Amino acid sequence: MTVTREKHPFYSFCNKTLEEIRSQGRYRQFTPLARNASQYPIYQLSKEGLQPSPEEIVVWSANDYLGMGIEPAVIEAATQALKQYGAGAGGTRNIAGTNPLHGQLEAELASLHHKEAGLLFVSGYVSNQASLMTILNSMPGWISFSDRQNHASMIAGLKGAKKANCVVFEHNDLNDLEAKLAAASPEAPKLIAFESVYSMDGDISDIKAICALARKYGALTYLDEVHAVGLYGQHGGGVSEREGVADEVDIIEGTLAKGFGAHGGYVTASREIIDYLRSAASGFIFTTSLPPAIVAAALQSVRMVKKDHWRREKLFERVETFREKLEQAGVPYMKTESHIVPIMIGDAERCKEISRRLLSEFGLYATPINYPTVPRGSERLRLTPNPFHTDEMMDDMVKALKTLFSDVKIQSNSEKVIENV
Amino acid sequence: MTVTREKHPFYSFCNKTLEEIRSQGRYRQFTPLARNASQYPIYQLSKEGLQPSPEEIVVWSANDYLGMGIEPAVIEAATQALKQYGAGAGGTRNIAGTNPLHGQLEAELASLHHKEAGLLFVSGYVSNQASLMTILNSMPGWISFSDRQNHASMIAGLKGAKKANCVVFEHNDLNDLEAKLAAASPEAPKLIAFESVYSMDGDISDIKAICALARKYGALTYLDEVHAVGLYGQHGGGVSEREGVADEVDIIEGTLAKGFGAHGGYVTASREIIDYLRSAASGFIFTTSLPPAIVAAALQSVRMVKKDHWRREKLFERVETFREKLEQAGVPYMKTESHIVPIMIGDAERCKEISRRLLSEFGLYATPINYPTVPRGSERLRLTPNPFHTDEMMDDMVKALKTLFSDVKIQSNSEKVIENV
Ligand SMILES: Cc1ncc(COP(=O)(O)O)c(C=O)c1O
Ligand SMILES: Cc1ncc(COP(=O)(O)O)c(C=O)c1O
Repeated sequence: MTVTREKHPFYSFCNKTLEEIRSQGRYRQFTPLARNASQYPIYQLSKEGLQPSPEEIVVWSANDYLGMGIEPAVIEAATQALKQYGAGAGGTRNIAGTNPLHGQLEAELASLHHKEAGLLFVSGYVSNQASLMTILNSMPGWISFSDRQNHASMIAGLKGAKKANCVVFEHNDLNDLEAKLAAASPEAPKLIAFESVYSMDGDISDIKAICALARKYGALTYLDEVHAVGLYGQHGGGVSEREGVADEVDIIEGTLAKGFGAHGGYVTASREIIDYLRSAASGFIFTTSLPPAIVAAALQSVRMVKKDHWRREKLFERVETFREKLEQAGVPYMKTESHIVPIMIGDAERCKEISRRLLSEFGLYATPINYPTVPRGSERLRLTPNPFHTDEMMDDMVKALKTLFSDVKIQSNSEKVIENV
Repeated sequence: MTVTREKHPFYSFCNKTLEEIRSQGRYRQFTPLARNASQYPIYQLSKEGLQPSPEEIVVWSANDYLGMGIEPAVIEAATQALKQYGAGAGGTRNIAGTNPLHGQLEAELASLHHKEAGLLFVSGYVSNQASLMTILNSMPGWISFSDRQNHASMIAGLKGAKKANCVVFEHNDLNDLEAKLAAASPEAPKLIAFESVYSMDGDISDIKAICALARKYGALTYLDEVHAVGLYGQHGGGVSEREGVADEVDIIEGTLAKGFGAHGGYVTASREIIDYLRSAASGFIFTTSLPPAIVAAALQSVRMVKKDHWRREKLFERVETFREKLEQAGVPYMKTESHIVPIMIGDAERCKEISRRLLSEFGLYATPINYPTVPRGSERLRLTPNPFHTDEMMDDMVKALKTLFSDVKIQSNSEKVIENV
């Protein structure tokens, strides 16, 4: 009865594309994993895909970096809000969907980043996409300068702004950035978009130097601290807080879904920028606001993370310990400046095979990270130790990796230069 | 220390634009309202913006149309999932963020719409934007045909697809649609994007006729059932279920945040279309998946809504009763084919004034709907009675409207033709 599969070319296009994806070994299969809130990072593997099985797995790839999502006080805050306010927000921010908690969280995030105001979005992806697109469509002639390794959500906003030009500078290359800033028309409004911690390679940008260039060439700065909030800085304000440069950045963006263990995204900036985005960003206006229970969880989490330093300390101690164990065992890994421990494989099928065997033979889960998340040739396992990974769990992972590295005869590509395609 | 307000033109642009918005009486002020889950649709007004005050307000603008967000079994499902799995998902779908519940909900939604497969997104906005953009960027030469009153989220996807052409047809005008389909190149892949219930005017499209045109001209059909799911059809499958035409539509999109009372969005379609979107849509791939607790709430809600017919029956009985009361009192309203009761005002300031006085003098909340949500000149109060609005609450609203309509000397614009700007 439908406009049948035979008739419309899109159906065969999908089938053809999926076949190609399969033949390149990059067909995406999601592993259903049920987290066990009382035993993080232990999850139950769901063999049939729909029901959790009793098999316990130690997960090494989650982005709930501090375990805030399983913190009893966070769960309790969400539970109370559920009981009090119900499940969904029931409206957009403007149409009966602003709970007092939304404003409280926005104020808390503004203070975390030393900004006048904050604005919540349904995700970090949307906060980047909607904010960048709205800013770059606001006045004629904007030129954005985008780090080559910026996240897909920033690219969606930068490229989605039809009125603006986007200039890509080489990853963390200040000379290239300066050359490109200098070559642009001095009159054009400019914006530099970059991240603090780049999540796949785990390297960190020089925020202070980029802000100095921004001042020199009159550019606005937009910083994605998604993989840093909660983890870096005295109160978890990110690398910009750690370096004491939060004040120099115009707009700081973050997520509530990684270090804070909840869900949603946000931007913080001056009063007028936030007020403008609030009034003009389609992706903020025309959508149901975040559920009060999620906002309550995030609020509780941000408040705890601000004052409890032990989580950050414990996280970095665990990362250090894990690296030492890898080192001692001779398992090659990328030494990064951050909490991220990439184990480079360099081939999609091999990467999947090691991941598959880690899971089936050792009860360990590490996602194979393949194209398009990383460039082809730089496929990897991306490990993220958290405060709850024990020494024993680490020993298990190191031993398993050692076995599989020699077993699957995979030559380490950890030194390989990553090409960005 | 920042690239100062004085230096970058964006700061003064924001200030200037905000002044303009203010002078046009369309500065957005959100009313913080704390829902009371045990007394829906009663909320507590939050006078200072951050803390709920004891003042009780009856809300008439929420989009939790069936009250599923305050259904005890829904809250209980979310509470259990919180306890079991924690607050956030902790990862993207591919990176440790697929809980067994995600797959269960996708299967449930596919079955609701008589489709082979379903895919979850963080919101209905993102499901529209990401799906449409991905489809229309897939092959060269796509032409999309978009109803003039399509929601901002669809427009974001249709216009965001740089490789495609977008042709706008007049609202619900089948002749215009056919003329435009006929004028397009027969070889070009085509897609018709439309809604079932248009939420601001409450009118309903002729899905069967549009699908017939789609067959005649070989176009794919994409239907937004956001304001219909849960409410229309034998199992809440929307207008397409009620009309028995779900099978004729290629892609059905919906939200979990309105009739289902939770949060998130989805599309359902054939296996290969869903699998393609799952593999290619940036807005699906590069973002943390929905929190398990929210998915649990939605799953419980969809299952209940499918089999409990009383909620739908009660909703439409309440809508009918409310209309009769408005009729009897001589309060002008738009007679719509749906559950939505728009009270047209036609002027932003007047609309805000009536809304303000409803709240301050009568303890009733109805959002003023102004530009850009509706065209200028068609400002309105948009009332959405739900199964829990009592006769007494209705009498209060009717009496208040009657008073304010004569008091504020507002002439009814309910017959006025809406211009779309
Ligand atoms: C750098 C970066 N920015 C933004 C996002 C999106 O954040 P969210 O998961 O909250 O959508 C991600 C990952 O998901 C990311 O890695
Ligand atoms: C027609 C329509 N589609 C999509 C959406 C977006 O859905 P969500 O609120 O889940 O983002 C809305 C309103 O919010 C809408 O009115």
